[in-house]
Amino acid sequence: MSTDPDTLSATLSALADPTRRAILARLSQGSATVNELAEPFAMSLPAVSRHLKVLESAGLISRGREAQWRPCRLETAPLQQVDGWLGTYRRFWDGSFDRMEAYLQELTAPRAQGKKQ
Amino acid sequence: MSTDPDTLSATLSALADPTRRAILARLSQGSATVNELAEPFAMSLPAVSRHLKVLESAGLISRGREAQWRPCRLETAPLQQVDGWLGTYRRFWDGSFDRMEAYLQELTAPRAQGKKQ
Repeated sequence: MSTDPDTLSATLSALADPTRRAILARLSQGSATVNELAEPFAMSLPAVSRHLKVLESAGLISRGREAQWRPCRLETAPLQQVDGWLGTYRRFWDGSFDRMEAYLQELTAPRAQGKKQ
Repeated sequence: MSTDPDTLSATLSALADPTRRAILARLSQGSATVNELAEPFAMSLPAVSRHLKVLESAGLISRGREAQWRPCRLETAPLQQVDGWLGTYRRFWDGSFDRMEAYLQELTAPRAQGKKQ
């Protein structure tokens, strides 16, 4: 899995669309053909194909070799890269940040009180 | 925190840029002014301001009221929403998917074998 920031940008950009995220959600249930993917969206096949191209170039899906069906399959490596990137921010909401903030306030409080006096 | 898909799209779109992610990384260390943010990027203040506007409209940063300084501050609610969305895919790489796949293969194996005979 590449850690090139542009790979991450391409992934995030591809994910920044509700239809493309819905396609990934469908593929998380199993592989599907373009026709199967188009059905629930009441969308033209060319429109779905355009979304699939964006997902494919971001590495979020791969497509089968069979010329007629070319089933689409979810590829999770780019999502895992997003997950890794988010990891550095997770401390802000998993509780460890509150503890760190309390600690920092404790450290800086005496100086702030000194200024007021 | 809104669960509107367009909010999520706006967040992902704002994050799909290495400079904006670097600004967030800097702000995760503490609030900073536009000047402080511009420094490490060797970027013009207007260029940094444009990035800050994108981050602000996605709710990823907030800005102080003081006209001269307007320090920028990281807001993590949108990141938490991305984290929540990613959660449904985490089973693919946290090991639970392998177990599910093995279970599904077990379920479907007898039928597949039946067809072959």
